[in-house]
Amino acid sequence: MALIVQKFGGSSVANAERVANVAGIVTDAYKEGNDVIVVVSAQGDTTDDLIAKANEINPNASKRELDMLLTAGEQMSIALLAMAIEKLGCPVVSLLGWQAGFRTSRTFGAARIERIKTERIQSELDKRKIVVVAGFQGLNKSDDLTTLGRGGSDTSAVAIAAALHADRCQIFTDVTGVFTADPRKVSGARKLEEINYDEMLELATLGAQVLNHRSVEMAKKYSVELEVLSSLVRESGTIVKEAVKMEKMIIRGVTKDTDVAQISVVGMKDIPGNAFKMFSKLAAKKINIDVILQSIGRDGTKDISFTCSKDHAAAAVELLEEMFSVQGAKVTCNTSVAKVSAVGAGMQTHSGTASKMFGALYEAGINISMISTSEITISVLIEKELADQAVSAVHKAFFEQ
Amino acid sequence: MALIVQKFGGSSVANAERVANVAGIVTDAYKEGNDVIVVVSAQGDTTDDLIAKANEINPNASKRELDMLLTAGEQMSIALLAMAIEKLGCPVVSLLGWQAGFRTSRTFGAARIERIKTERIQSELDKRKIVVVAGFQGLNKSDDLTTLGRGGSDTSAVAIAAALHADRCQIFTDVTGVFTADPRKVSGARKLEEINYDEMLELATLGAQVLNHRSVEMAKKYSVELEVLSSLVRESGTIVKEAVKMEKMIIRGVTKDTDVAQISVVGMKDIPGNAFKMFSKLAAKKINIDVILQSIGRDGTKDISFTCSKDHAAAAVELLEEMFSVQGAKVTCNTSVAKVSAVGAGMQTHSGTASKMFGALYEAGINISMISTSEITISVLIEKELADQAVSAVHKAFFEQ
Repeated sequence: MALIVQKFGGSSVANAERVANVAGIVTDAYKEGNDVIVVVSAQGDTTDDLIAKANEINPNASKRELDMLLTAGEQMSIALLAMAIEKLGCPVVSLLGWQAGFRTSRTFGAARIERIKTERIQSELDKRKIVVVAGFQGLNKSDDLTTLGRGGSDTSAVAIAAALHADRCQIFTDVTGVFTADPRKVSGARKLEEINYDEMLELATLGAQVLNHRSVEMAKKYSVELEVLSSLVRESGTIVKEAVKMEKMIIRGVTKDTDVAQISVVGMKDIPGNAFKMFSKLAAKKINIDVILQSIGRDGTKDISFTCSKDHAAAAVELLEEMFSVQGAKVTCNTSVAKVSAVGAGMQTHSGTASKMFGALYEAGINISMISTSEITISVLIEKELADQAVSAVHKAFFEQ
Repeated sequence: MALIVQKFGGSSVANAERVANVAGIVTDAYKEGNDVIVVVSAQGDTTDDLIAKANEINPNASKRELDMLLTAGEQMSIALLAMAIEKLGCPVVSLLGWQAGFRTSRTFGAARIERIKTERIQSELDKRKIVVVAGFQGLNKSDDLTTLGRGGSDTSAVAIAAALHADRCQIFTDVTGVFTADPRKVSGARKLEEINYDEMLELATLGAQVLNHRSVEMAKKYSVELEVLSSLVRESGTIVKEAVKMEKMIIRGVTKDTDVAQISVVGMKDIPGNAFKMFSKLAAKKINIDVILQSIGRDGTKDISFTCSKDHAAAAVELLEEMFSVQGAKVTCNTSVAKVSAVGAGMQTHSGTASKMFGALYEAGINISMISTSEITISVLIEKELADQAVSAVHKAFFEQ
């Protein structure tokens, strides 16, 4: 007998039929003798619909009242899923975030889980009940409802798995696992059996939108074994854990990220501290910088290029023009770029990974404008239009030969 | 400065425009210097829609999970109303039933309020905030959400007014007050300035669907002064309190109730204890009996007629046939009847009220099949088709001469 946490997103419970399907998955796990905790998001478009209702009434509503409104979404979905489980004849109880013991920081809209009081869940499990928990929500010290922010239900599931030392935390999505590349784009993409946390983190950050970044970090911190699998196709998914079999794979996957802007400051004076000032001011404005490239320009000047998300591009340009126009430097911003990355812990022990990737791109006639590497990732910045072609070429070089 | 509780039903907050209208009423009361607590039901058809969703998934869902589902309805409406109040620039906080301190019995679907822990509401009022409370809901001793059953939001409002010794509890509806008869049916109907609790109780029971019965009983018990008024027309409504000016009115209103079945047992043997057994067995089945008529039949037999609500008629007939068919008695059920009542504390001190009512019906050519009287009510059972005509005739006799 194991303790399993299962998490289902909004699309998995979007209508009565889907809810019944999820109830089937849950009760099957229960009937095999496991203790089962289910974490659910709001149904389908509920959250968006509620936000639209709020905007109609007051576009500047306080975050406290928005959280009060939105948390009703999961409340409805846990009740409906519990009813569907009752129909299949299994004992069940639904619990709101606060009933399940989620205590959070004060920040409405983006609260952090501070602790989970597990008494209620434990006592329901002791009665051999399936426990259905509302994801994405908790209670702060003032007894006000809070939401956890983006990807919140994944985080709820991992946190509860950590708190109760669950044997596994299954994240059900609309894909059957983590793939070596996007299977809709790359025909040779294949599903990974296993992947380690760091690889998954790189993939989550780099645009493979399977698992929320924060939830993977938490899983790593508390050594929660995750499984990513489909709620519609019954087959084993991809296990995410610390130590995985290396097989013969040097890399685990190839991804692209098109939410990238390349910003360049051309013709800065070569004064010590320019780069330091530049990046500390950007950090103060909470603009996250990714790849950085510095090069010597003409006439004793320097050029610095970096990438950030498109959301932050305008603010970055404004800040840099303010700083460097007095030095006669020019600031440019290019959003027609994409970042293509190869990720894999195997590259730490294998040489030649980078050259293999660059070779594949060269053969495909794709020009690289920036390169960045970490212990388990190689990323290149290329023209946006060529991104899918680049992913295919790199994937083929590593997986299809 | 006064403490005012305002209650708005589902139709008063059915859409964004109505919510804005209610926010206007609430903030006006606040800006006059009052402390304001607002109790709100779920928007429009929300509760019915949620019940339909539940039925689609599991028509035999547990009441616990139904309460979990339905309480989300008021959660959404309090958040939206709070947002509308924020937009008008007044400080506000929304509270769920449990946050507002409502502690109830264990019975899901029909819980009773056991006590209200007023600390949170009081502390918000002390900060000069408008407090918006979810009606119809509370928390039981197991920390599970409960609903209060029919008319629950009225009861929530009265209970909170009692607990905090509010100066007035305003119940906003779609009518401008309590009328001497249904103004849509009786052209001469006029609005009452005041009415006492017992009169209001009789009117609530007798089909004037303005105020829920249970909430009037609670208002009487704790001497909470009620005002019934409209959320759409800004004018003073009807005050419900203990001692009212008698004016010259003998009666306060004339109502009809068409949810009536007349059941007769004809030809019972005249054995002592027959009537006792009959009504105690009906009581054991929780069938509420209203008017009773016993008469001597032929050949030493007896006939007994009584009325009950239509919902209970089939069960009553089945029970009685089982009991009395051995005695050769016949059981009949007539649902083409209506009860017309005149209500008023004034009839205690005025003689001739009954004869005036009977005279009016006689002049209108309406036959009376049963009569019942209490200290402040005279009711007659007549043919259903003649009910509106009867109400008009009686109303005219008392109010329009």
